[in-house]
Amino acid sequence: MIDFPYIQDICQSTSSKVIMLVADGLGGAPHPETGKSELESANIPNLDNLAGRSACGLTTPVFPGITPGSGPGHLSLFGYDPVKYLMGRGILEGLGIDIEIRDGDIAARGNFCTVDKAGNLLDRRAGRIKSEYSMPLCEALDTIDIPGVEVRIFPVQDYRFVALFRGDGLDQNITETDPQITGVPPRSVEALNQNAKKTAAAANLLIEKAQQLLSHRDVANMIMLRGFSKLPDLPDFGDSYKLNPAAIAAYPMYRGLAKVLGMNIIKTGSTFRDEIDTIREHIDEHDFFYLHYKPADAAGEDGDFDAKVRALEELDTFIPDILNMNPDVLVVAGDHATPSIMASHGWQPVPLLINSSLTPGEGIKAFDERSCSLGSIGQISATNVMFLALAHAGKLTKFGP
Amino acid sequence: MIDFPYIQDICQSTSSKVIMLVADGLGGAPHPETGKSELESANIPNLDNLAGRSACGLTTPVFPGITPGSGPGHLSLFGYDPVKYLMGRGILEGLGIDIEIRDGDIAARGNFCTVDKAGNLLDRRAGRIKSEYSMPLCEALDTIDIPGVEVRIFPVQDYRFVALFRGDGLDQNITETDPQITGVPPRSVEALNQNAKKTAAAANLLIEKAQQLLSHRDVANMIMLRGFSKLPDLPDFGDSYKLNPAAIAAYPMYRGLAKVLGMNIIKTGSTFRDEIDTIREHIDEHDFFYLHYKPADAAGEDGDFDAKVRALEELDTFIPDILNMNPDVLVVAGDHATPSIMASHGWQPVPLLINSSLTPGEGIKAFDERSCSLGSIGQISATNVMFLALAHAGKLTKFGP
Repeated sequence: MIDFPYIQDICQSTSSKVIMLVADGLGGAPHPETGKSELESANIPNLDNLAGRSACGLTTPVFPGITPGSGPGHLSLFGYDPVKYLMGRGILEGLGIDIEIRDGDIAARGNFCTVDKAGNLLDRRAGRIKSEYSMPLCEALDTIDIPGVEVRIFPVQDYRFVALFRGDGLDQNITETDPQITGVPPRSVEALNQNAKKTAAAANLLIEKAQQLLSHRDVANMIMLRGFSKLPDLPDFGDSYKLNPAAIAAYPMYRGLAKVLGMNIIKTGSTFRDEIDTIREHIDEHDFFYLHYKPADAAGEDGDFDAKVRALEELDTFIPDILNMNPDVLVVAGDHATPSIMASHGWQPVPLLINSSLTPGEGIKAFDERSCSLGSIGQISATNVMFLALAHAGKLTKFGP
Repeated sequence: MIDFPYIQDICQSTSSKVIMLVADGLGGAPHPETGKSELESANIPNLDNLAGRSACGLTTPVFPGITPGSGPGHLSLFGYDPVKYLMGRGILEGLGIDIEIRDGDIAARGNFCTVDKAGNLLDRRAGRIKSEYSMPLCEALDTIDIPGVEVRIFPVQDYRFVALFRGDGLDQNITETDPQITGVPPRSVEALNQNAKKTAAAANLLIEKAQQLLSHRDVANMIMLRGFSKLPDLPDFGDSYKLNPAAIAAYPMYRGLAKVLGMNIIKTGSTFRDEIDTIREHIDEHDFFYLHYKPADAAGEDGDFDAKVRALEELDTFIPDILNMNPDVLVVAGDHATPSIMASHGWQPVPLLINSSLTPGEGIKAFDERSCSLGSIGQISATNVMFLALAHAGKLTKFGP
């Protein structure tokens, strides 16, 4: 958790209910022509109205100027120092395809690539080979036997897969094999310390056997591995805050993240409508719900300003449904900004609102970057959002005498 | 650097160009009669217009309420934790007169003072003796021989000089000799640990020989030493951010600071016009320029409100020249406030603007304390400014998966 060692002392379990709606990529940036951000351009009467009855502010996921991935963005919102608890790329990729990762396992992100006869890279992504072609290759790789280490290969999408290493004494401190340029061979895996030699040897043997197995092919005839990582040793979310938390997310990666934090994952469908139905059904079973909304981020990453505006407008239509469930506290937050003009995650501060019976309103007229900057919460580190949510829910007692 | 160990992982070298204009003592405070600060009183159309097309905010150099010297103020802006990397007074004084200080050297700030026959202090500054009188005294002191340690004396101004100790095994952990009151003798230097005994002995011997050498005089017949310090072990600025940085500053202390950080110091003249000509000439040679503007601070330190207003207006006239060099990112920042009403550095937050193609404007009407407080950057630690500058320049990749 963040650097506040007394959190467990001041948390108290109560019957009050918190819903934290995380709108992925919520924040944006002004369109060059209109000077208005996605939120400012969207017609979101329910969120605007709610902002008027809420405490508002802006959150910074890591530091000003630092653009977080989904991992750090979410960990921060849940109150975990995102620098201290950095999650590896392999682990996150594994969580994203819903595979079982156990303590001690090493997950790596794998790529098919194409090399020439001399073994030099021609294409680091094997022509972005489609899933229908890469799936059988993954199945073939999955049969490879490495003595003393169980190795599994799981397809992700197109040229990407996850390699999972399971066995005693595995260590993630090994180097990646992607040289980041073509015309040279992929690097071999090197152990960065004595304890990692077994893992490095297993990874190199996997690569060697994979190359033999793929050698008859012109394209996708080699693999590269990177982001070797273990599950981070994260404090349990429920224990830390004395909560009985549940996660509802249509996308596997966010369920995986929540699972690593010890939240109860409630099975749901593939749409936000499904998520809303799911939370309504289970509203009496938990005192904290993490509810994830993905489409705004996806549109922003595509650089599609109008699609992001529509995604925010779609989210807005669900706000009455959520309010009808009568949570004591509703938090609407984002894990990071995804400005459409950047077509990527961004570092910009993210709007935040916290609605409870303690927020009679502070004159904020709209739920957007500029309006929220005038709110009573101010501009805070996202790692403080949980404190505010719990405080509004009456779940935090006084700190110190 | 600040406490973000992944900075090198996410920095990428690109061709984009950043100019960081540091207006020394930029921030101010309202004049009691008009209620307007120096920036609010100044006619600065270019900066005001630029603010309208920029991301704006306020920076806090160290902590709210903490007034930084020039060292911490600048280190902070360059992204170095100013508490962790405190630069000693002796070192800063030495950098200010452009002397060569090597790793392991100890620099001290020296004062001429006046003592009575019993050795008790009559005047801690020797009547602020003028440089024309103190220079020959410094030359005399410079001839003093200390066995095993090379000691050099360099005049600074008036009653002030720098004493530089060079030799093996020197240690800065020794006490100062200025008792801060008159009527008592200057203190002798004491070693604060075993390793510092050699340095303490050398300093005491220098003081003893200096007293003998000056004993025939009525005024300036003794010296005091304080601020014993070594060059701090600072991470290289260019390496840390993957930049090829240059510094252009008319005043030696700022060049010295930049040199300690590993920036390339480009020779320039004594005016800001010279600095502008210099940066224009060398604009293609570096991807980061630190450009220093001094006059606003000097006027503020003099307590001359109108002169500070004029200094800011003068700075404003150079903004078009800077913009004509087409930097991808222009940062206008200050190392600290120098409110004229205080006639000294202040702790007040300092206006900041960052201009890039990603800042279409956020409705900020002027470049001053109050207007910038409404900007999207909010009020941040100055140590985060480099992150924002690099982010706007496309020189930072995503943190974490």
